[in-house]
Amino acid sequence: MSQSFDIAVIGATGTVGETLVQILEERDFPVGNLHLLASSESAGHSVPFRGKNVRVREVDEFDFSKVQLVFFAAGPAVTLSFASRAVAAGCSLIDLSGALPADQAPQLVPEANADILASLKKPFQVSSPSPSATTLAVVLAPLLGLLDLQRIHVTACLAVSAQGREAVTELARQTAELLNVRPLEPTFFDRQMAFNLLAQVGKPDDQGHTLLEKRLVRELRQVMALPLLKISVTCIQAPVFFGDSFSVTLQSASAVDLAKVNAALEDAPGIELVEAGDYPTAVGDAVGQDVVYVGRVRHGVDDLSELNLWLTSDNVRKGAALNAVQVAELLIKDLL
Amino acid sequence: MSQSFDIAVIGATGTVGETLVQILEERDFPVGNLHLLASSESAGHSVPFRGKNVRVREVDEFDFSKVQLVFFAAGPAVTLSFASRAVAAGCSLIDLSGALPADQAPQLVPEANADILASLKKPFQVSSPSPSATTLAVVLAPLLGLLDLQRIHVTACLAVSAQGREAVTELARQTAELLNVRPLEPTFFDRQMAFNLLAQVGKPDDQGHTLLEKRLVRELRQVMALPLLKISVTCIQAPVFFGDSFSVTLQSASAVDLAKVNAALEDAPGIELVEAGDYPTAVGDAVGQDVVYVGRVRHGVDDLSELNLWLTSDNVRKGAALNAVQVAELLIKDLL
Ligand SMILES: NC(=O)c1ccc[n+]([C@@H]2O[C@H](COP(=O)([O-])OP(=O)(O)OC[C@H]3O[C@@H](n4cnc5c(N)ncnc54)[C@H](OP(=O)(O)O)[C@@H]3O)[C@@H](O)[C@H]2O)c1
Ligand SMILES: NC(=O)c1ccc[n+]([C@@H]2O[C@H](COP(=O)([O-])OP(=O)(O)OC[C@H]3O[C@@H](n4cnc5c(N)ncnc54)[C@H](OP(=O)(O)O)[C@@H]3O)[C@@H](O)[C@H]2O)c1
Repeated sequence: MSQSFDIAVIGATGTVGETLVQILEERDFPVGNLHLLASSESAGHSVPFRGKNVRVREVDEFDFSKVQLVFFAAGPAVTLSFASRAVAAGCSLIDLSGALPADQAPQLVPEANADILASLKKPFQVSSPSPSATTLAVVLAPLLGLLDLQRIHVTACLAVSAQGREAVTELARQTAELLNVRPLEPTFFDRQMAFNLLAQVGKPDDQGHTLLEKRLVRELRQVMALPLLKISVTCIQAPVFFGDSFSVTLQSASAVDLAKVNAALEDAPGIELVEAGDYPTAVGDAVGQDVVYVGRVRHGVDDLSELNLWLTSDNVRKGAALNAVQVAELLIKDLL
Repeated sequence: MSQSFDIAVIGATGTVGETLVQILEERDFPVGNLHLLASSESAGHSVPFRGKNVRVREVDEFDFSKVQLVFFAAGPAVTLSFASRAVAAGCSLIDLSGALPADQAPQLVPEANADILASLKKPFQVSSPSPSATTLAVVLAPLLGLLDLQRIHVTACLAVSAQGREAVTELARQTAELLNVRPLEPTFFDRQMAFNLLAQVGKPDDQGHTLLEKRLVRELRQVMALPLLKISVTCIQAPVFFGDSFSVTLQSASAVDLAKVNAALEDAPGIELVEAGDYPTAVGDAVGQDVVYVGRVRHGVDDLSELNLWLTSDNVRKGAALNAVQVAELLIKDLL
């Protein structure tokens, strides 16, 4: 007899939630009853799962004792409102909103720090990091042993879908308006996003850092178990619908052996290495895929201690929904 | 009596050349006769200058002894074919193609290294650096004295106009095709450029570096007179028509005084500093302007020795045509 689990997905009508439900089906996750939850706005809608339409219900009225595992894929406010109720009812939870502190729900990327599971107590509370931290962790994990890592520099070029449905709609609308020479009226973004790059995603704090940038530093340090790692980060908003891209430089204290780096990337789980000369893109490669694409593996110009990489990954899938499901696959081994 | 100069612009029908002719007019450059040159393809066309239409002629048939100053704004091949003829005829020249070695025609950014003019001999041969190097030099110049600079990291997000007319047309065409759900057929770019980011601009060498990346390192070192400066660079292609954007990190050996940095940027020529919290963009700020916009001035997350900046500039104007005209304004003081 194979065991199955009753599961709730909160935010099931959203960008991440919908993909998460698809991935549970694709990977044949042992789902018993599936409860799809959202706000009152889309309660009553339905979402397909294994050939049936599953009715979406309001999270406020949900009885968490019906399930063993909950995915939180609505915003941080929803996680903060319902996580303790879920845990009190004995549910394990995986949060995708970044709302829970690391000592309550540590960040987990299966390719990088699956070992932390051993230290967790039931019911499990785990966070799936931001897509940027997840992507970087998948790629750093096989490289750490090869470098005397001093510092990481990242310019993360984020897709608008990182900000949910409305952002996707607005990029399409702005682009059409410009091509039709109609006046541009930004609504979701505070200025022209089409054919432009925005230097920050979200409001910066008094020091000039955005929440996403601070999350990336905090989460990556935790996942890599390198609490003092120097991480220099800028998150910008690109006029791309889906798929984040990353310009990354790793500084090592000594010369980097590119042959070893390539071999390690080639062998590592969750990574597709693109051949030298070529490079991956968000639209052409990463979107819809289960791996992080890596290309442009090279030293610095005149600097052998520098390792440069270009990464791209599906922010909704590999960066979020798939990582959460991979975490769930690890959890259920111990939930049994 | 005020002196005027007879001038030739090669590539006058191109993205850079056309803007250059406009800027000569705007800044009331003391132009006597203006000769506009291009290939046989656009010979016979005309370009407006000071209320008249100036006929474009073929460069092959041009008698360089008619002018005192030539702007080379066609490709490197054109510069290599005609520069020595121009010099032999006694013309000074300003090259925008990057074709000439630094010992023949040093890179000059008036805000950064105008002092090198003193060492040049007539007829003058000067290069205007790539837009990326020009933009970075304008911003680094006022900061060098404030930092114990160890290393610069740059991710340069280049506009498609950096690659000339055809690239601009193709981004528009690709975008329209996608919005109209027609099949995409890349011609100029080798893949989808619309709603995507390309990890490299031009073909990389065996070490993985593109010509633009190597030029940026070489030119910036020369302009800043820091031949050993460590510069880590990635040039990517963004789906933006005009205006380059730069995510820049300067590593200093000691804590960076942000108040001093802000004051220096505020006072420096060629720079517009955007207030904290806000940020400049290519489309909204830089395009059509004569300055480099600087924003997001901040330390690293937990790292006071890091200085992060976001820059944006009009690649065609500030990055190329205007810089060349500013160089010319310096040269004519000594051409007299
Ligand atoms: N997009 C990404 O790339 C990405 C990646 C990683 C993590 N995340 C995080 O995942 C979460 C969801 O992001 P998303 O991009 O999927 O957003 P989204 O497309 O805007 O979807 C939001 C989802 O949350 C639900 N929701 C909103 N308010 C709610 C409430 N008060 N009670 C219950 N449900 C509510 C929405 O339901 P209705 O249909 O009823 O409004 C919808 O299902 C956010 O915390 C986000 O930061 C996003
Ligand atoms: N675009 C930028 O942002 C930028 C910035 C800095 C430097 N540059 C450099 O400036 C140069 C021109 O770039 P662009 O962007 O202006 O290119 P463009 O828009 O494609 O224009 C090219 C110009 O060169 C002319 N030309 C081409 N082949 C020629 C030949 N065999 N003989 C004479 N003229 C010829 C063209 O004339 P026809 O009309 O007759 O074809 C046209 O005027 C390149 O070296 C480029 O790297 C460009």
